[in-house]
Amino acid sequence: MKTVEWHDGTVKMIDQSRLPSEVVVLELHDYKEVADAIRTLKVRGAPAIGVTAAFALALAAVQSRAKSREELLSGLHEAAEFTKATRPTAVNLFWAIRRMMDKAESLEPLPAPAIVEALVEEAVKMAQEDEETNRSMGEFGASLISDGDTILTHCNAGALATVDFGTALGVIRAASEQGKRLKVFVDETRPVLQGARLTAWELQQLGLDPILITDNMAGHFMSRGMINLAIVGADRIAANGDVANKIGTYTVAVLAKENKIPFYVAAPFSTVDLSIATGEEIPIEERNPEEVTCIAGQRIAPEGVRVANPAFDVTPSGYVTAIITERGVVWPPFRDGLRQISGTCDYPTPTRTNEERQ
Amino acid sequence: MKTVEWHDGTVKMIDQSRLPSEVVVLELHDYKEVADAIRTLKVRGAPAIGVTAAFALALAAVQSRAKSREELLSGLHEAAEFTKATRPTAVNLFWAIRRMMDKAESLEPLPAPAIVEALVEEAVKMAQEDEETNRSMGEFGASLISDGDTILTHCNAGALATVDFGTALGVIRAASEQGKRLKVFVDETRPVLQGARLTAWELQQLGLDPILITDNMAGHFMSRGMINLAIVGADRIAANGDVANKIGTYTVAVLAKENKIPFYVAAPFSTVDLSIATGEEIPIEERNPEEVTCIAGQRIAPEGVRVANPAFDVTPSGYVTAIITERGVVWPPFRDGLRQISGTCDYPTPTRTNEERQ
Repeated sequence: MKTVEWHDGTVKMIDQSRLPSEVVVLELHDYKEVADAIRTLKVRGAPAIGVTAAFALALAAVQSRAKSREELLSGLHEAAEFTKATRPTAVNLFWAIRRMMDKAESLEPLPAPAIVEALVEEAVKMAQEDEETNRSMGEFGASLISDGDTILTHCNAGALATVDFGTALGVIRAASEQGKRLKVFVDETRPVLQGARLTAWELQQLGLDPILITDNMAGHFMSRGMINLAIVGADRIAANGDVANKIGTYTVAVLAKENKIPFYVAAPFSTVDLSIATGEEIPIEERNPEEVTCIAGQRIAPEGVRVANPAFDVTPSGYVTAIITERGVVWPPFRDGLRQISGTCDYPTPTRTNEERQ
Repeated sequence: MKTVEWHDGTVKMIDQSRLPSEVVVLELHDYKEVADAIRTLKVRGAPAIGVTAAFALALAAVQSRAKSREELLSGLHEAAEFTKATRPTAVNLFWAIRRMMDKAESLEPLPAPAIVEALVEEAVKMAQEDEETNRSMGEFGASLISDGDTILTHCNAGALATVDFGTALGVIRAASEQGKRLKVFVDETRPVLQGARLTAWELQQLGLDPILITDNMAGHFMSRGMINLAIVGADRIAANGDVANKIGTYTVAVLAKENKIPFYVAAPFSTVDLSIATGEEIPIEERNPEEVTCIAGQRIAPEGVRVANPAFDVTPSGYVTAIITERGVVWPPFRDGLRQISGTCDYPTPTRTNEERQ
């Protein structure tokens, strides 16, 4: 099945918090349960979060007993605010909610039931687009991968981070499907271990034979010439190409630069946020300290210890070799490249430059 | 109590594999048990391993029923080989064993019982010296720490890595005792979590209030200007200043350089191995994959996944700001500085330079 899908008026998703020991499929009937699944990382990964948020709004519409358009829209606004409050960093969440709300508002002449139907259609369409996007990104990205490459990836930017196929892992998958022989190192990705639990598992399913390492080993293997390329996903990309992604991504990027190996970011264009000039404006989610002090229910640190637990970091664009999107590969200078592929006027211009902010 | 001590013909040590949830003191009567404690990380940290190995040989001497000097020495050689085979990277292990064997051989005119007595005395003396060494290192190192510094440390180079007081943590402790107000970030240090389990606990005992982070967060805090100094211990330092230390140390050093903050190494002179020209010659211990795939008995990765688990990495000397020893602070160029403080002819000259090896 897909990571998340619409099925007969319910949202079905793989509970990723239980992987890889159990494959449990949740069937949710209430948009608040869907939002809660986002908050508690039952579903995670920027593109998957986006589609799941769209499904949450579709579900809110289906659940609504609103008789009038106004009543429906007011309920949807409430659901949108509730869903937005789950996770602050990935822009896809806000992008998807805005797209759903824009859709609802654009249908103003129609009666409530027709709007509900159109919103379900829109969410299902977004899920389909996500898959197409990833396959296209995979094609573009695969051209950057050579036969015999040894690739490092961090966190999970695979099928499980999207509706299907994946972003960074989609690129690896597409290259592998082209017959390129690849070796993949997987950072376990503390604290939530998405690499160990999800990426290693996905690569096994794909018939690749990943090598799992702890996050602090990647530098060692790079310094010994045993990794020649790094590729990760993204949660938000600023107009200048700064990339917010899972905590530890910045470190991978610095190590890659120091060891002169390319560092690629693969993300759908919906991850690019042209409304912000630089990564400094991206809010970084601080999560529960217990993610650090407990693993699989076991306490690993002394009682009473202070903890910092930022879920993401920002990699300045200077460390990024190229950004792979479904619209093509963008090379530095990213400000120009990202604007170029944005094409239409979908996105607002940044109002402040980094220089003006300082 | 001390991390490891000689007590009435037995070796007592804190079982560090049980910390911080339980403080269990082992009392060992057989040198093979002591060697096993080294192998299974019940005692770890280069200086502590050295003293423990000396105690293992003292215990082998006490256990021996040898009637003649020759018989005793042959038994000691066997015990030395057994103990050497536990862990390959920390040079202190080999240094301590050599010192004990040199002592035994230098006493050749004496009868077996006198040699046994002298070996126990020598091991106890080495334990005392370790403490003095660390206090002296603390004094020298504290001069590099300023009031208000925020320090990052990796793994455990504390009292538990030595007989008492610690190396890198000894420097922090000495600076704190001088009244300098410090903030300390502690890398949890996967896979064995010495930072989370031991360093965080030790700093709590010292009344400092450490902030525990996962290894992949240090770069984030450095990039935000929230860490202004890094200090770690060492397991072996080559003649050119290359440093082998816990896996992840190289990454800390690269991040420190990139963010223009000093990276200090604190280690007793017994950690310096002038017999090897560069870090490339240091053997890196590969440990059990289960250290990566299981935490506190819980499996966190899919069955059948391949794992790499190097216990150490090598930080090229170019990343090291200074090496703090009990004989003073050594600045680059380290080849000269380390030879200078070696003073006597205790150590052989490197036989090959790095250039000759290539």
